[in-house]
Formats: sequence, structure tokens, C-alpha cells
Amino acid sequence: MNGTATVPAAAYAGNGQMTIMDAPTSPPAAGEVQVEVAYVGLCGTDLHILHGHMDARVTMPAVIGHEMSGSIAEVGPDVTDWKVGDRITVMPLAWDDTCPACRAGNQHICQNLDFIGIDSPGALQGRWNVPAATLVRLPDDLDLQTAALAEPVAVAVHDVRRGEVAAGDKVVVIGGGPIGLLIASVARVEGADVRIIELDASRSQVARGLGFDVIDPRAEDQQATVEAWTEGAGADVVFEVSGAPAAVLGATSLAKVRGTIVLVAIHPEPRPLDLQRVFWRELRILGARVYQRRDFERAVDLLREGSIPHETMITGVLPLDQTQAAFDQLQSGGAMKVLVDVQTGGTV
Amino acid sequence: MNGTATVPAAAYAGNGQMTIMDAPTSPPAAGEVQVEVAYVGLCGTDLHILHGHMDARVTMPAVIGHEMSGSIAEVGPDVTDWKVGDRITVMPLAWDDTCPACRAGNQHICQNLDFIGIDSPGALQGRWNVPAATLVRLPDDLDLQTAALAEPVAVAVHDVRRGEVAAGDKVVVIGGGPIGLLIASVARVEGADVRIIELDASRSQVARGLGFDVIDPRAEDQQATVEAWTEGAGADVVFEVSGAPAAVLGATSLAKVRGTIVLVAIHPEPRPLDLQRVFWRELRILGARVYQRRDFERAVDLLREGSIPHETMITGVLPLDQTQAAFDQLQSGGAMKVLVDVQTGGTV
Repeated sequence: MNGTATVPAAAYAGNGQMTIMDAPTSPPAAGEVQVEVAYVGLCGTDLHILHGHMDARVTMPAVIGHEMSGSIAEVGPDVTDWKVGDRITVMPLAWDDTCPACRAGNQHICQNLDFIGIDSPGALQGRWNVPAATLVRLPDDLDLQTAALAEPVAVAVHDVRRGEVAAGDKVVVIGGGPIGLLIASVARVEGADVRIIELDASRSQVARGLGFDVIDPRAEDQQATVEAWTEGAGADVVFEVSGAPAAVLGATSLAKVRGTIVLVAIHPEPRPLDLQRVFWRELRILGARVYQRRDFERAVDLLREGSIPHETMITGVLPLDQTQAAFDQLQSGGAMKVLVDVQTGGTV
Repeated sequence: MNGTATVPAAAYAGNGQMTIMDAPTSPPAAGEVQVEVAYVGLCGTDLHILHGHMDARVTMPAVIGHEMSGSIAEVGPDVTDWKVGDRITVMPLAWDDTCPACRAGNQHICQNLDFIGIDSPGALQGRWNVPAATLVRLPDDLDLQTAALAEPVAVAVHDVRRGEVAAGDKVVVIGGGPIGLLIASVARVEGADVRIIELDASRSQVARGLGFDVIDPRAEDQQATVEAWTEGAGADVVFEVSGAPAAVLGATSLAKVRGTIVLVAIHPEPRPLDLQRVFWRELRILGARVYQRRDFERAVDLLREGSIPHETMITGVLPLDQTQAAFDQLQSGGAMKVLVDVQTGGTV
């Protein structure tokens, strides 16, 4: 433990490559705990990093990973609420508490946000030091594989809360990938009637398997379908989760007068939007990013009570030394969420 | 009065032409009053009609005009709250009360809205029959020229209310035309600190004359200016009143985290929008259209108490038979609001 201890880790090394390495570890600093990582989920942002789109933001070799579950291995000085063995997940945000956004109470989108796992080292390592303030407690009866979904579920909880989805609302989710399905699931828990717009046949099949009606905009007029379904009103809330330019352009036609469109997907380039429709119907368009603590806690509750289709969501679990293969699987057609089991497959 | 009575009127006759004609008049029907029109303000929508952009919506010859003041000349059956001589303005909206928007309480943007003065005959005539439900009472100490501004002021009141502008807010208004100046004036009444973005030198001069700071985005970096002014936060509320594509693209860079952008201008074509910024800062974009009764009543109050710079706003008053010239004046560089005096210049 004298500064030379190492743990197995998976790191982005540039050029689309994940490398397995021995990462140095050190005792947790004041206010920190050292986590024994169990499972890490891979997501679209991790893929963006792997593909080099975020090379300006990460320091290589970059130990990434921000969806996880684990337990506390060591407690640093000045940490009072946690003990070794506590089962936890991490809300991977660190804010500065001094910028205008923080001072206005929006710490989760701090203007100088440290997104742990992107801007600083992530969970794809055997031991991971994190601020105790990021910890979210896991109940004893929630298994650690399912708990690794807490972060993406928290995204969905935040998006649904931002859209103010209420019982009885008619909700359209554009895009039936992992986040789209989670948003649809959380909206359904809130009592909404949900339809998913999806082009891909296998994703549509998964969505239908979860009991959702799916609209294929190439096979039918999506606006006419939504108008018929809502008796001429339009949807209460539309979630744009696809990232597709055509989806953005069409989203405004699906919302009711004074309806809401929540922008969840990343759109790296400016997208044409039908502002005439926004004006005419007094629509509301809301950006939604990450989550707040209450979203994370709600996500853990939803996972425990079985409201999230975790078995459908987790389509693969691979050991740490197969992280590259896990990414390959994530990019293949049928995958939803692929987990890395950090407890096995280390090279140390 | 036996069906053959006529009044002087100005009507859009196609091909950019306003014609002066004798319009038939009839006694007010049940629930209606007949108004003796005093002044009619011309606006950008009237110009769109004159230029033929709305030929599919109007029936020629189309008596237009929806900003007005006047008094009641005759009261129809079943009208109990009004009497001959009452000084009034008209909120020119008629809704069907049955569509989904109306049933949800958004009558002002009824899905089958009759905008009086566009979809049905307007105020550019000596006598004008309107539903008593559209009447808004004018106080005795508000002159009829100033009162003719009630409709555009109601637009501004609605926009400011929609943007939830609060005392102390830092507000940016993009576009220093008539509606932009009215929004800026109303926001200032609410206690906001307002800056106007405007390219045109003469409009900038008018805005400065009203005590507003003006940003010329060609002479300075508007984002840097707004960031410095707001100490790094960004504006609380941004009003897009210009209709310019570049303004929409830039608007997102001016708003604070969780800030609001109100879309007031007409954008006939889809516009590129920086959705990455909307996501990153969790911005809120709101369409804002027309007004509700409370906005109209507040507009009359603001005009009476002198909070609206009516002398600056009204740059010309011409008689009815010079309506074409009034439009010409409206399109000239220096004009703000041009009124038609319907009491004079008739040909009958």
C-alpha cells in the first residue's frame, strides 16, 4: 500500500482501442472512499470516446466508465456516513459550487462540471476513489448487475421529471434504444400511455416485447397516427432520443397545443426546427441533461421494485479483459446494455 | 338600415393593393355590438397580407385590421353588459370552445381559431360588427389614438408573462422593431434589466432614446457582451423577435443555464438551432402567440398609466382613404406604428 499498489483497469488508448493495464491506486483522500467496483455499464458516450470524438476532453490512457455498482473497500478521513462493505452506486458528477449555475441551484449542470468517468478517471478499474458525496446507497435485495443500470435509469427519471409527465398523459418517445426504452418504462410507471417511434426492426421487436406500441414512420404517417390516437389533440410530451435530424423536424408536429418536447439526444450539429409550429401551438422545448440526486435515488427504488425491465436491458456481461469485445457487442445490432464484470478477467 | 346601408372601408384587393370601397353593413346580430371604429394600427401581419403571402387565408376584397379603438354605436340582442357610447378596444379572437386546445383551457390558440381581421372582416371600416365577448373596456382618461396600441401591447404583455420575466432578471430582446420595443418596455415595467440587439441604426437610435442599451452584433461579440453583463451567467430570458435565421442560431448562446428563449417572430422556414447548447444548459424554448384576456386588460392598464412610450411608437396617423400610403410609410425605414384614422377620409 506504499504508493506502488496497482489494480487491473481498462483504458481508452486512442485509435478505437481499449487497453488492459495495471493502474496505480492510492488510499482514499479526505472526503473520499475507495470503491471495489463490481459491474460497469457501457453507453453511447463511452462509444463516442472510443471513436475519438472526445479526444480533446479525455487524457489518455483514459480509464472511463460511469455506470456502475460495487461496495466500499476503504473509507478515507472525514467520511462519517459510510463503512467498509456498504453496497453503493456512484452519481458521477462533481460540481464547483461557485459558478452561476451552482449558485442558482443547478449544480448538476455546473458550468465547470467534472463528469467522473470522462473528465476524470472512471469505474473500469478494480478499485476506484470517489468523493463520498457521489455515493448512492443500494438496498440489500438489489443485485449488483441490476444496480449497474442505476445511472441510465436516473437519466430517464430526470428526463421524465423534466417533461412533467403526469398520469394519463399520452407520450411519444422517438428512438427505441436503451435510453428511449428506459424513458418509456419510467413514463409508464408514472401512469402515461406511451408510444415509441423506431425504424429498426429488432429494436421495435424488443419494444413490443415490453408491451409498447411502436410506430414505424416509414410505414405510416406518424403525425396522422398520433393525431388519431390523441383524438386530434397531439401528444402531451414528446421525447427526442434518436439524434436524427428528421426526428427533430418531425417532433414538433406530434405535440399538442402547449405540449412539451424534451431534447435528450446529442445533436452535434445545428438542426432545422419547425419554429412556425412552435409559435403556432405555443410549444415548449426543454433540454434535459444528466440527473439530480433525487433522480438517482428514484432510479434505485424503481430497479428494486422491479419497474425497470432489467433482464431485457442487459444483453451481455463480459469480464474486464474483454472490454473491447464488450464495445464490439454494444455496437452490434441486437445489443441494449452491455456490462463489464470488473471482478473477473483482470491481468494482475 | 334595411340591408342597403354602407360604410367606407379599406380592403386588400390582391397585388399589393388596398382599395377604398363602400362596404355593406347590417345591424349587429344576437351577442354582437356594432362598433364605430376610431383608429386602426397597421402591423407586420397586415403587411404580409398586402404582399400576398396569406392569399390562401383571406377572402378578397378583404377588409383587414385588428389593432383598433372605438366606441359602441349599436348593441345587438342578448348583449347586457354594454351600451351605446362605451369606449372600447377589441381582442380579435374567436374560438370554437370545442377543440382539444379549448377544452384544455387554451382558447387563445384554439385549433380552429378565427383571428378577426384576417380570417373574418377587420376594423378598417366605419362600422364593424363584433361579438360582445371580444370587447375590452377603455378608461375615460385614455385617448383613442393611444388605445389603438392595446393589441400589440397585449402581445408584448403575453410574451413577457410567457417568459416568466421577474424583477431583477437580465433580459435580451433580439430585434428592435415595434414588438421588440414593446416587449422591452413591458419587461422593464416588470423590473427587468433589458438590452436590445439591433442591426439597424435608426431603430437603435429609437431604442436608445427610450433608455435601452443596444448591442450591435456586427460591432461587438454579442455573447461576450452578454456574458460580461451577466457576470458569466447568461441572460435569464431571451426574446427572439427578429425573424432572422442568424438570430435564432445565436439566441441559445445568450441564455443562462436553465434560461428561457421566447420565440415571438414568425419563421416561415425551418431554422437551424443549436440543440447541443439547449441540451448542455437545459434551456427552455417557448413559443408565444397572441394573448389572453388578462394580457389585453393589462395592456390597457399600462397604456393608461403611461408605461408604454406611445408617442415614440406612433410615427404616423393617416386618414382612411390614404391607407395605401399608410402601408408605404410602415415599410419605410423610420416608421414604428402607423395608424389609420377611420373617422376621416371616407369616400361615402
